[in-house]
Amino acid sequence: MTEPLSDTQQAAWRAFVESSWALHNRLEDDLRATTGLSMSDYHVLVVLSETPEHRLRMGELASRLVFSPSRCTYQITTMVKRGLVRKQSCCDDGRGQEAVLTDAGMAALTAAAPLHLATVRETFIDDLDDAELATITRVFGRLGPRLRTQPVAV
Amino acid sequence: MTEPLSDTQQAAWRAFVESSWALHNRLEDDLRATTGLSMSDYHVLVVLSETPEHRLRMGELASRLVFSPSRCTYQITTMVKRGLVRKQSCCDDGRGQEAVLTDAGMAALTAAAPLHLATVRETFIDDLDDAELATITRVFGRLGPRLRTQPVAV
Repeated sequence: MTEPLSDTQQAAWRAFVESSWALHNRLEDDLRATTGLSMSDYHVLVVLSETPEHRLRMGELASRLVFSPSRCTYQITTMVKRGLVRKQSCCDDGRGQEAVLTDAGMAALTAAAPLHLATVRETFIDDLDDAELATITRVFGRLGPRLRTQPVAV
Repeated sequence: MTEPLSDTQQAAWRAFVESSWALHNRLEDDLRATTGLSMSDYHVLVVLSETPEHRLRMGELASRLVFSPSRCTYQITTMVKRGLVRKQSCCDDGRGQEAVLTDAGMAALTAAAPLHLATVRETFIDDLDDAELATITRVFGRLGPRLRTQPVAV
C-alpha cells in the first residue's frame, strides 16, 4: 500500500500534473494547427537534428525520449509514412535499425521552431523569475535520467 | 519575431519540456497497462468526481481541463462509448449538455487511483524537498489559470 501524499505534496502534484498536462496539450494543439506536427513528431525531429549525421539507433531514440519500444515503433512508422524520417540498417554491424532525419524532416523542424518558441514564451517561460528557472532546471534535470533508469511497463 | 530564449531560459525549458513530457507518457503507459485508462480519461474522471452531483457542463469541463472544444467532444464521446460517463441535457434551462460520471466511471477511478499514486510517488514526488515542492506549487499554480484565459487555437 503506497502512503497517501501529504497536503503539501498533494498541492504540488495537483498543480503540476493538471497545469503541465494542459500545457503539453496546448503546445500540441498549437503545433498541429500551425504545422501539422504532433509533440511526439517535434521531439523526435529535435533529438535527431542534434545528433552527429542526424541519425540514431531505434533503441537509443526510445531511451532518449523515454518511449516504450511499442510507442517508439509506432511513432517512427507514422513519421516514415510522412517522409519526415527514414529507417535504415545500422552501418557498423548490419543488425538493428537507425532512424535518419530526412531533408523534409529538417525543413519541417526549421519551419515549426519559431512558431513553437512563441507559444513556449507566452505560456510558460516569460512568467518565471531567475530563482524559479533555477529550480525548474534542477528538478526536471533530475527527473529525465531517473525515468530512463526505471523500467517501462509496456 | 520572438526573441530567442536566454541560455538560462533554454536550460530550464529543455529540462522541463523533455522530462515532464516523458513523465506524462510514463504515467499514461502505466495507467493504460494497469487499468486501460488514458491520462485524459483519468483527468476527466477526477474532475467530475470532485464536482457536486458528479456532473459538469461540457463547456466548463473543457475550460477546467484546458481542452479545445473539438478535443473535449472527442474525449467525452470515447468515454460515453465505454460507459465511464453519460451525456444529458442541462436540467436548468434545457440548453447545452452536461457530462455525468457513471457508477462504472467512479469504480474505474477508485480502482486506478492507488496504482496511479504509486507511479506518481516513484517517478516524481518522493524526489522533491520542501522548497522545491513550494516552487512547483507556485509556478504551476499560476500556469493553469493563465492557460485558461488564453485562446485555444483549434
